[in-house]
Amino acid sequence: MEIRTSYAADNYTIHVDHGILESRLADYSADYDAVYFLVDRNVYQLYKDSVLSFIDSPIILEGGEASKSFDAFKHITESLLERGIQRHHLIVVVGGGAAGDAGGFAAATVLRGVDYIQVPTTLLAHDSSIGAKTAINSTHGKNLIGVFYRPKAVIYDLSLLETLPQDEVLSGFGEVFKHALLKDEETVRDLMAETRGEITLDALKPFIISGIETKMHHVLNDEKESGIRKYLNLGHTLGHAIEYRYKMPHGIAVVLGLYFTMFLSNEVEGRKIFDLDHFREYFSHHGYPIHKLKSIDEDEMMSLMGRDKKNQSRAATGFVLMKSIGQCHFIEIENTELKKYLSYLKESL
Amino acid sequence: MEIRTSYAADNYTIHVDHGILESRLADYSADYDAVYFLVDRNVYQLYKDSVLSFIDSPIILEGGEASKSFDAFKHITESLLERGIQRHHLIVVVGGGAAGDAGGFAAATVLRGVDYIQVPTTLLAHDSSIGAKTAINSTHGKNLIGVFYRPKAVIYDLSLLETLPQDEVLSGFGEVFKHALLKDEETVRDLMAETRGEITLDALKPFIISGIETKMHHVLNDEKESGIRKYLNLGHTLGHAIEYRYKMPHGIAVVLGLYFTMFLSNEVEGRKIFDLDHFREYFSHHGYPIHKLKSIDEDEMMSLMGRDKKNQSRAATGFVLMKSIGQCHFIEIENTELKKYLSYLKESL
Ligand SMILES: NC(=O)c1ccc[n+]([C@@H]2O[C@H](COP(=O)([O-])OP(=O)(O)OC[C@H]3O[C@@H](n4cnc5c(N)ncnc54)[C@H](O)[C@@H]3O)[C@@H](O)[C@H]2O)c1
Ligand SMILES: NC(=O)c1ccc[n+]([C@@H]2O[C@H](COP(=O)([O-])OP(=O)(O)OC[C@H]3O[C@@H](n4cnc5c(N)ncnc54)[C@H](O)[C@@H]3O)[C@@H](O)[C@H]2O)c1
Repeated sequence: MEIRTSYAADNYTIHVDHGILESRLADYSADYDAVYFLVDRNVYQLYKDSVLSFIDSPIILEGGEASKSFDAFKHITESLLERGIQRHHLIVVVGGGAAGDAGGFAAATVLRGVDYIQVPTTLLAHDSSIGAKTAINSTHGKNLIGVFYRPKAVIYDLSLLETLPQDEVLSGFGEVFKHALLKDEETVRDLMAETRGEITLDALKPFIISGIETKMHHVLNDEKESGIRKYLNLGHTLGHAIEYRYKMPHGIAVVLGLYFTMFLSNEVEGRKIFDLDHFREYFSHHGYPIHKLKSIDEDEMMSLMGRDKKNQSRAATGFVLMKSIGQCHFIEIENTELKKYLSYLKESL
Repeated sequence: MEIRTSYAADNYTIHVDHGILESRLADYSADYDAVYFLVDRNVYQLYKDSVLSFIDSPIILEGGEASKSFDAFKHITESLLERGIQRHHLIVVVGGGAAGDAGGFAAATVLRGVDYIQVPTTLLAHDSSIGAKTAINSTHGKNLIGVFYRPKAVIYDLSLLETLPQDEVLSGFGEVFKHALLKDEETVRDLMAETRGEITLDALKPFIISGIETKMHHVLNDEKESGIRKYLNLGHTLGHAIEYRYKMPHGIAVVLGLYFTMFLSNEVEGRKIFDLDHFREYFSHHGYPIHKLKSIDEDEMMSLMGRDKKNQSRAATGFVLMKSIGQCHFIEIENTELKKYLSYLKESL
């Protein structure tokens, strides 16, 4: 399966399939004099004798967020330069969203920009194949230093995902589910049917692809239609607060945020857009701790949501809600109101 | 005086004059909720009670190259974030080419890009008002990490240049002279006449402006005319080798490189395009150590020129020569030939 971006220029292909990495990479590499691999440490350990056995002496990225520090940035760029990287060479970044962010930032800045290919190895990282965001972290918050820099291709080889810890699958699935909600009712129904028993990567493949398409739609049409990009924030306003407060994996917190969004959409519209029992059972069955919402502290959540860049020092909070599945709208909700709804949510559980 | 860039989009104005900083900045700042100043330490010391007295608690950049380290990059971006910078705020960078490179890179990457204005305080930095290059240094070489990022404006207040050490004036003048050579015979003649006795900033003002225009012409027409951007490298092939070997200020080494370029152009064309005695006397009068060229080691220079990214592991060296003032061409000259000409140069002095 392939998806091609549809920017005005500098488009690239996102390949999604099992067992495609080596052959696809060979096609792309043929255009370059040299190729450098940046590989997540854990991923390399798991696959160096199988899927990644063709890679000679990669530059190893510390697993996860550790690769997004200033020190790691220095290490990566200096390693590339030490090996003699030049402008017409290629960088290939293999790992989850963190490796992709860090490796992408290094590719964007070394020699003022060298071509790179992303090889995502987590479910969450399907999300980063569109949007061109690269970043490292500051002590003042995540992703605060970076640039926009498009890859030359994304090769999403699903055979690298088999070893994902269950938490990582659940976390990535949160964004897959969000993208289904942004798309349409049919996609949500199919996704829930296909994953009724358990969430398997095989079942997810078509939804990963449609998720990428949905994200592309929102990112690409933003300039014209003003603001639909922010619908990608669905579930994230409370989600980020919960992620921060409970140190929960990102996508798991997002699912809790999505549940509140459904609740709030019902309340604000004054009708039952979402059958909350149905969704709550489904999420809980898969291990999402929806019950945690019962014990949140409203004031604490309000204060954490207020830290969001977009909501600073204001009496109202921006929120993406739904009129129906596939149909979002953005509202400013007064903080006193929002806090009340958080209490209602707790009572409802 | 003002020059406006002529890109397809995202154009900006370069203001060049005495005493314009505060009022121009006020105009631009009006569009932003907050302004952060990044100021070269030495420049701030010199002007904090005069031209820069309107600046409250700037973020101080270490003078010169020290501001272009990884550590300085971390310090600058973290300081901006600590002070609460947001995407619709403005950064103003005050200093020489080094501060401009470092501050520009920080502006380009903090929050994935915040608007910034450049306030160059050296003569050399007239060169960086066009081209949008930002960078920090690697242990493997200068300017190896960076991005292209255009300022919203350049405010070149010549009253900040009065305190430049003589070496810095000579260094900056090297690039002014190069730009005159790239332009036309009349400009070179006028420039030499106006600076016959000494090089004063007042005399230079029109040549700074025409230098900026010349650089803009070469950068902007590059996409269509293929390769005229590299004419900006005039004098730099040997210049860089001399700069590295003798730890000479950049533009002073460039003047030595320009002298060799004149010599080589005469030789290759087989006619006297340049009256070498005339130029040598002029340069020497102003303190450029042309005589140093007599004691260079040909093999050493060849090896240093070979390190240039564009000339790696090749039997020939790329060189920008002149058919006449204002008319460059690019040649590949065999290394055995080039070395021979270096010997001839030494003999000629
Ligand atoms: N650029 C974007 O658009 C974008 C979008 C979403 C998230 N992100 C960023 O992505 C990061 C989170 O991404 P993530 O969830 O992929 O986490 P991650 O990259 O931190 O990986 C999580 C853990 O899983 C390990 N891992 C990765 N692939 C594995 C595999 N196939 N098998 C076994 N273990 C594996 C990693 O070593 C790490 O320890 C965050 O830093 C976030 O800011 C960026
Ligand atoms: N981005 C570009 O297009 C571009 C072009 C040319 C050069 N550069 C870079 O610029 C740097 C060299 O620039 P530079 O020559 O301006 O040097 P600089 O910025 O290093 O300044 C040289 C010294 O002069 C001091 N100084 C600056 N302004 C002063 C003033 N008005 N009065 C007294 N002292 C002052 C500085 O503190 C420093 O100690 C290099 O790092 C080079 O790579 C970049």
